[in-house]
Amino acid sequence: MIKVSVLGYGTVGSGVVQILRENAELITKKAGQGIEVKSVLDLRDFPEDPVQELIVHDFEEIKNDDEVQIVVETMGGLHPAYEFVKASLESGKSVCTSNKALVAAYGPELLAVAQEKNVNFLFEASVGGGIPIIRPLKVSLAPEEILEISGILNGTTNYILTEMTDKGADFDSVLKEAQDKGYAEKDPTADIEGHDACRKIAILTSLAYGKQLDFEDIYTEGITKITDRDINYAKKLGAKVKIFGSSKKAGDKVSAMVAPKLIMPSHPLYSVDGVFNAILVKGNMVGDVMFYGQGAGKLATASAVVSDVIDESKHVNVNMKTLWDAEKLALMPLSEASSKFFVRVHGSREEVEKKVKNAFGAVTPVDAGYNDEFGFVTEEITEGAYEKAANEVSVINKIRFEG
Amino acid sequence: MIKVSVLGYGTVGSGVVQILRENAELITKKAGQGIEVKSVLDLRDFPEDPVQELIVHDFEEIKNDDEVQIVVETMGGLHPAYEFVKASLESGKSVCTSNKALVAAYGPELLAVAQEKNVNFLFEASVGGGIPIIRPLKVSLAPEEILEISGILNGTTNYILTEMTDKGADFDSVLKEAQDKGYAEKDPTADIEGHDACRKIAILTSLAYGKQLDFEDIYTEGITKITDRDINYAKKLGAKVKIFGSSKKAGDKVSAMVAPKLIMPSHPLYSVDGVFNAILVKGNMVGDVMFYGQGAGKLATASAVVSDVIDESKHVNVNMKTLWDAEKLALMPLSEASSKFFVRVHGSREEVEKKVKNAFGAVTPVDAGYNDEFGFVTEEITEGAYEKAANEVSVINKIRFEG
Repeated sequence: MIKVSVLGYGTVGSGVVQILRENAELITKKAGQGIEVKSVLDLRDFPEDPVQELIVHDFEEIKNDDEVQIVVETMGGLHPAYEFVKASLESGKSVCTSNKALVAAYGPELLAVAQEKNVNFLFEASVGGGIPIIRPLKVSLAPEEILEISGILNGTTNYILTEMTDKGADFDSVLKEAQDKGYAEKDPTADIEGHDACRKIAILTSLAYGKQLDFEDIYTEGITKITDRDINYAKKLGAKVKIFGSSKKAGDKVSAMVAPKLIMPSHPLYSVDGVFNAILVKGNMVGDVMFYGQGAGKLATASAVVSDVIDESKHVNVNMKTLWDAEKLALMPLSEASSKFFVRVHGSREEVEKKVKNAFGAVTPVDAGYNDEFGFVTEEITEGAYEKAANEVSVINKIRFEG
Repeated sequence: MIKVSVLGYGTVGSGVVQILRENAELITKKAGQGIEVKSVLDLRDFPEDPVQELIVHDFEEIKNDDEVQIVVETMGGLHPAYEFVKASLESGKSVCTSNKALVAAYGPELLAVAQEKNVNFLFEASVGGGIPIIRPLKVSLAPEEILEISGILNGTTNYILTEMTDKGADFDSVLKEAQDKGYAEKDPTADIEGHDACRKIAILTSLAYGKQLDFEDIYTEGITKITDRDINYAKKLGAKVKIFGSSKKAGDKVSAMVAPKLIMPSHPLYSVDGVFNAILVKGNMVGDVMFYGQGAGKLATASAVVSDVIDESKHVNVNMKTLWDAEKLALMPLSEASSKFFVRVHGSREEVEKKVKNAFGAVTPVDAGYNDEFGFVTEEITEGAYEKAANEVSVINKIRFEG
């Protein structure tokens, strides 16, 4: 029998307890022994919930409980999650977490402690919710030189963009509706400004190359500037607007970015709509592989956590080495990254086309029926070249275009 | 340094040698040590290929080579693959294989030998080529009660159906073209009759439930009866024809089948076209997860084999237990499985509609402009009820309909 402590009885933590109970029989078979929640750390009490008898309020109790071999961290936030996780590993317990902020910030350090103590630190649930992606990237794609990762990594923004596309609604009203439905948080900043996706692509890219990509170094653009006009242009182009966390090998360096992009129906992620997430990984041998599923949600995320618990229960005192050094990954300057750009500038086509062509070179006009602005798609140019050209005209918005 | 022997220097075997050489540096990092091909078993010689110096013609040499810790079986076929794999395991070597026929027929026995000898028998490449599916199903989805598996598991037939849909071409000419391009084999029977997909769904289903599903027990229908008329009806319905290997939990039993199906654009596998494969797994906690990629091809398949080699190199003398007992999985009789059916019967609508309704109950007519036949979609009925009703009319073809 393996004894587990859960830190934080919120959405994911309570899902972990639920799955370990409801699927106990099959989990016992898969793990080769029973897995039992011995204690749950939370500041609150839950008098109506059978979990109450497991509730402890002091982390020290868990840290000092030698019977507890696995600690599940589902509190979120950096502190005290970091301190608790580190202390758990140092006292010889394996840890698994759904906490992307923690993993993005302290991944290499915590992995090093786990290795030193011959225990494990796993974080399947930190990216893509219930989608198996961390373990496939580490183990199944181990033979691959990763050339590119492209992910729809945030369900809230994908839901908003899908609704804007399907219903022709504007950003603010869709956001409000998403908040009412519980698909977006009261403070939606982390989602709509791309911060959530940024931490996730930082984790995936660090794992792909075995070195640390700091999320602060990744150019991150949210979806708050996307309007119904952008969506209408997208439709004219036969494209959809999606927000991607992406990274790409470029010689000895890697480029990385979070930004909305226009993609065409031939793109493997074109049909990933609503709250679903999907991650495309391109390897030098295997080509494109794609993983799809619910990127959030109580039970989907908790399921990924429990898969880590089972894996750790089968590797007691055997460290499964994860390559992710503290050494920094060499990042290509943003200005050198290149793509096509869809651009909207103030002024009618008659008024500004010549100026646009002087600035951007050859462009393909897109007519969505607006007379007070001019929309067009550039050739593939660098971000630096785009910035230079954009200074020559009066840009309303731009969206990178993969087509 | 881990020493590997490769049995069979065909498409996949030569791909394994190529990947271990070309990605040697990163594989050494991931595995924590070098992985070197020490010998390659083949009856042939390859005087123009550097592999020649590794070629041996007698399996006994490999079996008796104590330096060889991992054997890669990429010969295909049941014999002597079975004998060689079993002997390798018995002599304390781990084995990985791309051979679905071998795994479907002897999986539980070979896993038991591996467990007894404290080595490993892995077969990621036996299903879905380069798509990570076996390991995610075993490990990442370990907490899940698997409710359903639905896979486009054969690239040749998916290519043929895609071409028939896109070009309006008939089956025979597309098959001929696929053979010319190397997408279909000279003897395409195993693909077009569904035998290949059948072995793959047998493997996935056995792993999902930990018991043996014999492929001979799975109802298997190929795509040879699909005509351009069926494709035109599908277009009228807004659907596509795809051939699925699928299984579903039904109480204490499991239903399983290989058959063409009509699916609508809302189906997660609708946009999986051409030679690509995809597998949808539904769990009781995680909901739908989907895996997509190249289901065949030298390097994609070889990459999956090499992921197993790396995993085995990290688990020397540590058996990673795989739940797959020889005990038979309880299969629901085909007659009890239910779905909607798209059916075409001889005779004009005027002539046969009444008879059809008498036999099938309520149906939805589909008009694709053919006056000599009547096409319709039934309500959801059992296979048994379908068979009974079909006896009352003159059926040209039927395709199960998920919509």
